[in-house]
Order: sequence, then structure tokens, then C-alpha cells
Amino acid sequence: MGIFRSSGKVYKPAAEVNLGPDSDEFYIHANVKAPRVAGLLVKIFVWILESWILGPIVVYVLKKDNLIHKLVSFAEIQEPPLFTSTHNWEDIEEQNVTRAKPELSPAERVQEAANCLPPRLESILSKPSSSFKRWTIQDFARSYMSGETTPLVVAKRFLAVVKESSDPTLNMAFFINYDAKDILRQAEESSLRYQRGIPISLMDGILVAIKDEIDCMPYPTTGGTKWMHRVRPCIDDANCVKQLRACGAILVGKTNMHELGAGTSGINPHYGATRNPYKVNKVSGGSSSGSAAVVCAGLCPIALGVDGGGSVRMPAAMCGVVGLKPTSGRLSSSGVLPLNWTVGMPGILAATVEDALIAYAAICGHPQLGQPTYLKPELNLPLLTSTHSITNIKLAKYGEWFNDSVEDIRSCCDRALEMLYKQYGWKTVNVTIPEIEEMRLAHYVTIGSECTASLAPHLAKLNFSEIGWDARVALCVYGSFNSEDYLNAQRIRNRQMQFHKEIFERADVIVTPTTGVTAYTLQNDALSSGELDYINGAALVRFSIAGNFLGLPAITITVGYDKEGLPIGLQFIGRPWSEATLLHLAFAMQALCFKSYKEPKVFYDLLSKS
Amino acid sequence: MGIFRSSGKVYKPAAEVNLGPDSDEFYIHANVKAPRVAGLLVKIFVWILESWILGPIVVYVLKKDNLIHKLVSFAEIQEPPLFTSTHNWEDIEEQNVTRAKPELSPAERVQEAANCLPPRLESILSKPSSSFKRWTIQDFARSYMSGETTPLVVAKRFLAVVKESSDPTLNMAFFINYDAKDILRQAEESSLRYQRGIPISLMDGILVAIKDEIDCMPYPTTGGTKWMHRVRPCIDDANCVKQLRACGAILVGKTNMHELGAGTSGINPHYGATRNPYKVNKVSGGSSSGSAAVVCAGLCPIALGVDGGGSVRMPAAMCGVVGLKPTSGRLSSSGVLPLNWTVGMPGILAATVEDALIAYAAICGHPQLGQPTYLKPELNLPLLTSTHSITNIKLAKYGEWFNDSVEDIRSCCDRALEMLYKQYGWKTVNVTIPEIEEMRLAHYVTIGSECTASLAPHLAKLNFSEIGWDARVALCVYGSFNSEDYLNAQRIRNRQMQFHKEIFERADVIVTPTTGVTAYTLQNDALSSGELDYINGAALVRFSIAGNFLGLPAITITVGYDKEGLPIGLQFIGRPWSEATLLHLAFAMQALCFKSYKEPKVFYDLLSKS
Repeated sequence: MGIFRSSGKVYKPAAEVNLGPDSDEFYIHANVKAPRVAGLLVKIFVWILESWILGPIVVYVLKKDNLIHKLVSFAEIQEPPLFTSTHNWEDIEEQNVTRAKPELSPAERVQEAANCLPPRLESILSKPSSSFKRWTIQDFARSYMSGETTPLVVAKRFLAVVKESSDPTLNMAFFINYDAKDILRQAEESSLRYQRGIPISLMDGILVAIKDEIDCMPYPTTGGTKWMHRVRPCIDDANCVKQLRACGAILVGKTNMHELGAGTSGINPHYGATRNPYKVNKVSGGSSSGSAAVVCAGLCPIALGVDGGGSVRMPAAMCGVVGLKPTSGRLSSSGVLPLNWTVGMPGILAATVEDALIAYAAICGHPQLGQPTYLKPELNLPLLTSTHSITNIKLAKYGEWFNDSVEDIRSCCDRALEMLYKQYGWKTVNVTIPEIEEMRLAHYVTIGSECTASLAPHLAKLNFSEIGWDARVALCVYGSFNSEDYLNAQRIRNRQMQFHKEIFERADVIVTPTTGVTAYTLQNDALSSGELDYINGAALVRFSIAGNFLGLPAITITVGYDKEGLPIGLQFIGRPWSEATLLHLAFAMQALCFKSYKEPKVFYDLLSKS
Repeated sequence: MGIFRSSGKVYKPAAEVNLGPDSDEFYIHANVKAPRVAGLLVKIFVWILESWILGPIVVYVLKKDNLIHKLVSFAEIQEPPLFTSTHNWEDIEEQNVTRAKPELSPAERVQEAANCLPPRLESILSKPSSSFKRWTIQDFARSYMSGETTPLVVAKRFLAVVKESSDPTLNMAFFINYDAKDILRQAEESSLRYQRGIPISLMDGILVAIKDEIDCMPYPTTGGTKWMHRVRPCIDDANCVKQLRACGAILVGKTNMHELGAGTSGINPHYGATRNPYKVNKVSGGSSSGSAAVVCAGLCPIALGVDGGGSVRMPAAMCGVVGLKPTSGRLSSSGVLPLNWTVGMPGILAATVEDALIAYAAICGHPQLGQPTYLKPELNLPLLTSTHSITNIKLAKYGEWFNDSVEDIRSCCDRALEMLYKQYGWKTVNVTIPEIEEMRLAHYVTIGSECTASLAPHLAKLNFSEIGWDARVALCVYGSFNSEDYLNAQRIRNRQMQFHKEIFERADVIVTPTTGVTAYTLQNDALSSGELDYINGAALVRFSIAGNFLGLPAITITVGYDKEGLPIGLQFIGRPWSEATLLHLAFAMQALCFKSYKEPKVFYDLLSKS
């Protein structure tokens, strides 16, 4: 014992850490020590990692070089472990909200949400003159109501453009699975309801895509793999899918994703690399790559993703759409692949904040019995009609962290904060959020350990040639953690929960860029082997972790574009259960940025007569 | 990956397991594959275990042979992990209780408890004629009140007998630390209060011993080691000690314990093997060995222990005293060595059920702020005056498990159940509690992992020659678990929580023997090296685990003796928060068995004039 033990960080008691702007806590820039590797080199690397003797040694060196040993494994931490993101925080009253009672049906909640929306002034079947805008749920619903189009017509257009986008010349790799017959059947039923004047809700006939990590009949749930559906057949809709179906939504298939959610680029060796509709030689981000890209490209106003480490928010930001990860325990995880237990949950990708609100209201029903999560019985829905009347919102900003992003992102996000101040008077307060890199590593140990525990029995029976090369690297590292690593990671979770609780006594939300870089180039050598690009990976997840590790709600909204025209997202992280406040803020931000929104290179208009 | 992976048990969904007497669930008799080892062999074994290459191989073989691989590490389990013993069970109203409000002081709660006690008929300063009886808190308090004796006189007698018992001829090894000056000072202050007619409570002047795993000023907290107090100085009383002090109790020192709580025999190479007062060549049980033995030998009516895997109940049973482990979350763990986080908590060793009740009432105050545990604000105290009026108590018994104990224990415990039925009409219902051995192993993985995470930074800096040989073996195995083992263990915790919830819909308590064997022989070759006796160890903890792993309250009461005259304990395991019911049952049992109680070979009378 102790032979392989290097010295670890000695953490001071959490209560003694200064969270003010004058803190002497040191910001650690993620110093990832691993070059980008793709093609043959990835395969050689996997052979080494999976080898008997050399493998563990290389993993050991990787963990040591990347500070996992120092900051997690061998650290001295006084706090006991906190295993889940249980919040014993006092509720704070949210402003300008309406309460949806727990006994409402999904369709009734959607109606409540619709009542929160501002009136729409533009004529619905013409594009707004001055700027690009994706069609919203309301746009579709009004067209259906007025009879200008029908769900069946839209569904047929959808099928045509999916085919077009899958063509070798575009090769967008949006979907893993879609069933034309099933889609048309749903569309016919919805069209009939409109014809009879009895649509179920505002979401009746709305196309919704589902990440292939969430059960949705009649599709297998692959998790982006070639084998998952064999060992775990999909036999029922996931809870959130059930609620969408109960609103009349048309479920249009299973979107592409990073294999096992074990990466952030969206490059899947089995189902193709999802391309960024803004620029097809760029990645879409991941792991909910397809869900972000289809909303971006106009194929549907809403898609569901799963967010275990920013996997909804990162691709949303990189594809220029809205991404909402609610508070942990707000949604049922029933029917979601159990790739982890304590950090992941479903999230929403939406064309606009209004649509995010409607989808959120739809899926926030009671979980099924036997779920160990806590569900908040009452739901606050934000009155988006009255943003201006919210006063005194305070935004916490940790400068060194905020600025740990590329120049375009930094300046664009700073401008966005200035706009919020000028327009609404919302001030930014400077704080220090300590141990950001420590939290990222602790989260990595956690999600890796949980993924291993969940998958190991399957993997033991699997022919590894069925698994992509980069996923195999991830699985090797994931499987290398001992119980001490895992427990220390949970002690870091406890510290961060204390830090964040105090930060939220100083401000209402934390504001950060959503990612540290914009969509980067999809290189050809990565297409079949995948790539290992931990430097870009770390830059992508830099701002995501608190949402997962601490179960805090978070939303990303597009606030501009970089020099290449790629979208930039701003993130608001909220107190537990404060989704209404986040939606309010994102709506206010959207109202300020909306006019400069740009149309993606790959974009389909399913609604206009043309 | 997968190279070292053998096949694991495939668990069926917990909901499909039959818990009735007709279940086809198979009871696995713990098939421990490890011979008893002591003396030089232990040292050789440690050298092997701690060696670079051979060590991990031997540990691997041990885990494989003892079914840890099959039942935990490589198992296929559907349930998600449950990390702590959080109970979302519906409260059931307890009969014949009085409620102590949360705002009461410790002394006021003691008074409430005193009001629950039956009147005492015998003259206090003569032994009951027909049978052996230890002096109770009430006996001491009445003597102090009447002026027949004083706390100072009793304290002086105490110091004399501790000295006598430590004499090489007896060598009982009761205490690790006691400070005559500090004890006499407390006794003088208490005597003065009685003299002035202002005792603080019924516990004023009562001698209480504290396991050396709990902080109690002015003593270092050694945890049974030679080094713990160097790296973790004791700077304040533990929460439960504070509350005892606030009642006027005299804290008489720190009792001996198994080193780091990592064993069940009570053989400590640094502070001596605590001997069983019933037969000094027998072990006392552990790890709260000294606390059980001092109560047994009459040195104090109450001692505190810590119970992470039966460590209060096992020595209590083996020393013929009452052992109470409350519901997890009932007591603050503040000031208890963090040797684990999710299974251990303080518990009470008492001469009688009445004394257990009083001590329980004393220490059940609010935990200090910042404690992550849930504390039940209201406390039910059992009205021991009215046992007969409790009707319809149903005792769940799992026959195969119950009978997995030596013949004397089995027959004695069966007789006890018959007596309860005859006297009170309380029926036994047959049930099946599945996966008992699985739970024992999952608990072992859990406590081992948590102990490692807690101690590893200290151990890394330590000279291992300071650690006892058997503790070094335990630490080697404890440190060998990976995060998958830990997570699988928590999934087994989830299953057991579901099983037990259903069992408690069929019955009010589960009844078992407390241990599978009575106190076994203390062999000379174990005294300095410790011994590895995993067969006796497994038999001892067999019935303890649910109390720790599921956080259920449990109590042990003496119901007879084996052929050698060694005590036999019966255990009641209750629903969460049902301590009052357990105390009622134990009191009823004690009333039936009391007359046959035997005096230990080593027994001191601190109260009688003689």
C-alpha cells in the first residue's frame, strides 16, 4: 500500500473558503495532457490500453498527468461524501410566475404554458422581414388550426428533407432510426383531430425528435451503439415521451448521439458524425448531437436530449438553439438508458425559449412510482409576457472562469451581459467559485464509475470490435477508478454544494459562456475511428459541470456568432427549482439578440408555402 | 478488460422476489474460505498481502473464493444504487408512547423517560433476593438522593476497581484511557449538586464510559490505534457526549475497542484483549468491546459504543447486556471518528432496558447544524409501565436464517419467542428475507471502501509497524475495491431496502438471534498479533447487517446462557424510527428472563455497602 501513492491536494474546510471577488483561491486552467489523436493512432492507443500489463500503466500515467491523482484520488478532504444532488436549500419565491398544479395532465400543463406566452404580432406564414427565425410550436399550431396546412403535410415534408439531408452529398447523420410508416400514422391521426376541431393541445401535430438514449416506441434504444438494444430491449415509452405523446406530439424518430454519451463531439463511427447545420465541416457537439442539429436545421421545434455532463447544453450552444437542463429530480428518468445514476437526466432542445417552456411544461409530470428521485409537486411557469417587471436580478460572474474561453466567446458574452444591464438594469456581481477543475475531474470520476457499473456485465459478454475506438478508450479509463476515487469525488460534490449554496445567497443566477470554444472542425481522419481530442473536450464541458454534479437547473441561449459565423451560447445556472427564472432570463436575452440570429447553411422550412 | 472477470449472479428484479414462507429463494450459508490464523502466520500473511505482485493476486483469490466477485463485483443488478439508508417509508403509529418534543433539553428528556419507567418495588440497597441484577441508573440516583452514598464515593470505588481489573492477574483491558483527576472533579461537582438538592437530572452522578471512537474531552480519540489521535486531535466533546454531560453524567474514560473497529473479537494488540467478564478466557466481542464489558462487570450502568456492522449489539449480546442501535439519522455523528459515512452511528450499551431508555432519551437531541443526516424532530418514548396493553405485535422470523446459529442459541431464542407468545400473545410469522449473504458482502464492500477513503491519506504517511497485524490485513482487503464494487453494493442496498419495506408490511419487527455463536475462546497466540478468524467473524455479524446497511433500529436483550454459562442475545429489528416499540419488546422480554440472569465471574458492586 502507498507505493503508487503520490501526494494529494490538502483541501481546506469548505466553510473557510472565500467566495468573494477578493478571494485568493487559485483558478486552475485545465491543463489537459493528451494530444489530439485520430485514425490509426487511436487504434494503436486502444490496443495498448486494453493490454494486460501496459494498459494499467498508461492509464495510471494519464490520470496522474491530468491531475486526477492529485486533486481527487489522493486528496485530503474533510467533508463527508454527498452521493446525489439532494438540495436542502430553502425555496426562494420566484417572480412573475404562474403555478401549475401537480394534478394537471400534460395537455393541461401545455395550455398553462401557452397562457404564459406573449402575443405573436407577425403574420404567421411569412418569415419575419428583418431577421431569421425558426418556426415555433405556436406557428405550427396556428397553421394547423387555420387549416393552412396539416400535420400530415408537414410530416411528409419532414420525411423528404430527412432523406435529402442523409444524401451522401450532405450526409448530416441526424437520425439513427426513423420509421416513415409510424410517423405518417401519427400525422394522420393528428390531422384528423384538427379536422374534427379536437386537437389535444398546442403540441398536437408538433414534430418531436428523441435522442437515442431515451426509450420511444417502436424504436430500439441503441445509445449510439451497435449492441445496446440487443441486451436491453425497448418495451415502453420513457416517462417524458409518454407525456409528449399524451399532448398529441408526433414522435419522429431517434436522433444520433455520441456513442454511449461518452464524448462531446457527436462523431459516431456507426451512424455517422452529426454535422453542424451552420457549417457542415464542423462538429455539432454532443452527446445529444442529432437532437441539437435537427432543431437547428428546422426539422422540428423540439427535441429531447440527455444531459449527464453538458450533453444537452453544449450541442445546443454549438448549433445555436436553446438547451434546458432542469433541476435534478424535476423529471423522471424512467426509460432513459441508465448510463449513470447521479448526474444525468433528460433535457430539452428547442428552437426558441417559448418552445422550451411549452415542452418543459409538457414533460414535467409526476414520475412513476418506485423512482427514487424527489419530484417537486408544484411547477412554476414563467409569465414571459412580463419580463420587464422582473427587478433586481443579480447575475454572479467568476471572471477568471468566464474568461477561460476563446476571444470571440468572451467578448460576445460580455456584450450580452451589458445589454441585460442596459435594458433591464440587471447587475453582474463578481464572485469566486473555487475548485472548478477539481469539480470537473470529480464529475468525470463519477460518471465514469457509474457508467462502468452499469455497463460492465454487458461489456463482459461483448465482442469489442462492435464498440467504437474512442468509446473503448473512454471505457478503459472509466473502469480504472477505485472506490476511494469515487468516494473522494462525492466529497468534492459536498464541498461544491456548499460553495454554490453560498453563491446563490449573493446572486440569483450564475452566468457563464456555455462552452469555451465554438464548433470545431470535423476532420476526415476522425470519421471512422473517432478522435481523441481531450483539449477541445475539456474546453467544451468547462462550464457545464455544476448543472450535473450539483443537479442545478441551467439553460443556454444563443447570443451571437464567432468570426466564422458559428453560434455562441450564454449559460444561466440557477438555484434548485428555479427553471422559471432561467426561462425568464433566457427570454429576455433572446428578445435582445433575436434580430441578429443567422440562418444555418442547412435549413429546411417545413411550414411556408413555397 | 474482462480478462479477470468471472461470471456474476444475475439478480431478478426485486419486485419479483417472493418474501413469503413458501419462497424458493435459496439461503446461502456463509461459506467463509479462510482458516483461523494467528501468531507468526498472521505476520507472514501480511507480508504477502502488502507485497507488490503477490498481494493483489492473493486478495483477488480471497474475494473470488468468498463470493464477493460472484455476488457483488460481477453481478447483474437492475436496481439503481441507494447510497444511504434514507427511508421514504410511511410512519406507523406506535402504541403506548409519550412524545418528547424537540425543544426539550437533554435533562428534560431524561425526566420524560423517567416518567415512562415502572415503579421499583425492591428496597434499593439490597440485592434482589432471587436473582442477579446490575444496579440501574435509578438505583444510583435514589442512593444519591437519599444520601446513602455520593457520586464521589462511587467514583472512588470505580477507580479502585478499574485498577484491580487492570492488574496482571485479571488483565481485563477495559479502558484505553481514564483520568482519575478528571473523574474525581466531575464526581465532586455532582456530589455538591446533590448536597445542595439541585441535581440536574436522573443521570446526575451516573458513571458513563465512552468507546474510544467518540470524542470526549479531555481524552485523545485513538480509535484503538497508536496514531489516530496524532493526525486527528480531539478538540471537543462529540454531540452525544455533550448531551450526557448536560445531564450531569460523569464521563469515566475511553473504553477499549477493536483497532479501527476493523474486527469483531475485541482483541487489540496495543491496549490488550478485552476479556469477557462472564469467563475471562473468552472474547468480549467487538468492536465496542470495552463498552460492553464495563457495563457487564458493573463498572457503569451505561456506555456508548459505535455500531457500523453490529459493533454495539454483538459485544452486548456476548457480555449479556442490552445493546441499542437507533435508526440511522436519529443521532448526530458529529464527533465520531469518520471510519465510514453510511453505515455507522453511535449506540447504547446498558445494564437494563430501563437504562437504555434513559440514555437514549438523553442523547437524542438535535444534531449540530451542517450535519447532512436527517433527524426526526419528535421522539417517541415507550411507556414501560404498560407493556401488557400492547396488542397484536407480530414478529417476523426467517427460519433458515434464524437457525443458522449454534444449537444452544437456536433453542434458547426459540424458547424466548414461545414465552412472548404465551405471556403476551405475540405471534411469530414466517417470512423469507432473501440475499442475506449478499447483503453481508455488500456491506463489507461498503464499510471497507469508506474506511479506505477516510483513512488513506493518513495511512500513506504512516509507519505500518504502528498498525496491528490483523488491522493491516483488513486494510489490504478494504483498499482493493473498485468503484464498480462499491456501486453494485449500493444496488444491493436498494434491493434490501425494498425487501425490508415489504417485510414490515407483514410484521412489526424482525426477530433473530443477535449472534450465531457465543463468546469464543481467547487464544494466547492472538494476544500480540491479533487473529484472523473470519469463520467466527461471519457467524458473529450474521444478524447485524440490516441495522447498519439499511439504517434500521435494532436492540439486543439477553435471553439465556449456553452450556458454558455464556450469554445469549435475542435481537429485534424494527421499522425506521420505531425505537419505542423495540424498547417495549426488549422490556417485555427482560421481564420474562430477568429471574434467570447470572452474575459474571468478574463483577463489581459499586453501590452496596459491603
